Amino acid sequence: MKKGTLFVLGMGPGDPELITLKAVRILGAAPVVAAFAKRGEKGYARSLAAPHLRQDAELLHFDYPITTELPRESPAYRQTLAAFYDEAAAQLAARLEAGADVALLAEGDPFLYGSAIPLFARLSAAFATEVVPGVSGLGGAWARARLPIAQGAEVLSIIPATLDAEQLACRLRSADAAVIIKLGRHLGKVRAVLEAAGRWQNAVYVERATMAGERILPAAELTTEEAPYFSLLLVPSGKRR
Amino acid sequence: MKKGTLFVLGMGPGDPELITLKAVRILGAAPVVAAFAKRGEKGYARSLAAPHLRQDAELLHFDYPITTELPRESPAYRQTLAAFYDEAAAQLAARLEAGADVALLAEGDPFLYGSAIPLFARLSAAFATEVVPGVSGLGGAWARARLPIAQGAEVLSIIPATLDAEQLACRLRSADAAVIIKLGRHLGKVRAVLEAAGRWQNAVYVERATMAGERILPAAELTTEEAPYFSLLLVPSGKRR
Repeated sequence: MKKGTLFVLGMGPGDPELITLKAVRILGAAPVVAAFAKRGEKGYARSLAAPHLRQDAELLHFDYPITTELPRESPAYRQTLAAFYDEAAAQLAARLEAGADVALLAEGDPFLYGSAIPLFARLSAAFATEVVPGVSGLGGAWARARLPIAQGAEVLSIIPATLDAEQLACRLRSADAAVIIKLGRHLGKVRAVLEAAGRWQNAVYVERATMAGERILPAAELTTEEAPYFSLLLVPSGKRR
Repeated sequence: MKKGTLFVLGMGPGDPELITLKAVRILGAAPVVAAFAKRGEKGYARSLAAPHLRQDAELLHFDYPITTELPRESPAYRQTLAAFYDEAAAQLAARLEAGADVALLAEGDPFLYGSAIPLFARLSAAFATEVVPGVSGLGGAWARARLPIAQGAEVLSIIPATLDAEQLACRLRSADAAVIIKLGRHLGKVRAVLEAAGRWQNAVYVERATMAGERILPAAELTTEEAPYFSLLLVPSGKRR
């Protein structure tokens, strides 16, 4: 029997209209649709996909077993997540083996810090796989902030806020423009690094870009030391100022 | 009279299906559609837009007066381009003043090294402007190359090949993963830098991602010292190897 194809679908930054024609076509044909979300949350990819699905599509929902309860570097964290991905991959593999195409939803762009990457890594050698790029959360952020992020010969770096302060400062120094992602409880540390580099005043804070509840403001107007995990800071190039 | 709105539309990496629903809706309503292209070339954004346009839409085509004839740092280059953008902005402003919405096509994502940025800079203060993000050429490249480009705490840097060799090496050292853009005649220099850094063997060359004539191959299999301007190299993180 012919095996099914795995489609890894970029679902865009959150605005229902920022899905591609290709994702809509594939969603409309897929007999199986799989999505990941934090436990207790719906995850916006499922909502975005809903209006485009076949009525008889099988929906597979995988809830992350842990998010911030364990330190990310701990063996327990790694083992728990690996077992979770193995089990999810086994469920998708069963459908693919049976000949059903599977659409795996990925928020933003699938291969840019995407949560679908571990599933791609586990399944793409055994099954035909097509990765459909999407508008990234970053692209949504700089469009909504009306901030052209990189031009000409500028270097743009995407820097996770989870790095320690010294690494953050070092990586920032060799970037012209930067986007600091995964802010969460790291906002205070990031702020100190950007202030020391003289770049806090020009930074722009973006939360839930293109979605309901979107917040965009100059970083200098932030009054808290914490931020949602999926918020980010746009740090424009000093060259153009 | 009510002025028109300027829509800066991300048209995606080239695959006609990688346009967003939002871009399609706006194209279908816009009385004026403007696009930039190299002299003598059609530019793929115009082809992508064509099936979605109003029959009576006014099409404005602007051909870049220079591309590589003059050095990019020369005053003559800057002045020629600035005058070109001023004139194009004036033509769009006339339509917007007369109350017509204008859709300005941008290949890839408008604010990621986008050629529409100079027009946005000239018009967005005077006219209502909406920037519609698109799937970037980079997103198209790593999806088609089946290469998850960044994960977890990795830093991803976008580095223009136009930098000198020393700068390239320096910026590359502080990135985990990198994308080297605007290769063109800089390929030989980039190759030397990546070889010296021990990263040429893992790099992947991508040309015309998601389009007809797409070429994807290990950098090590490249046999020329030049590449098209819109080709790029994906340099994966050494951490995962």
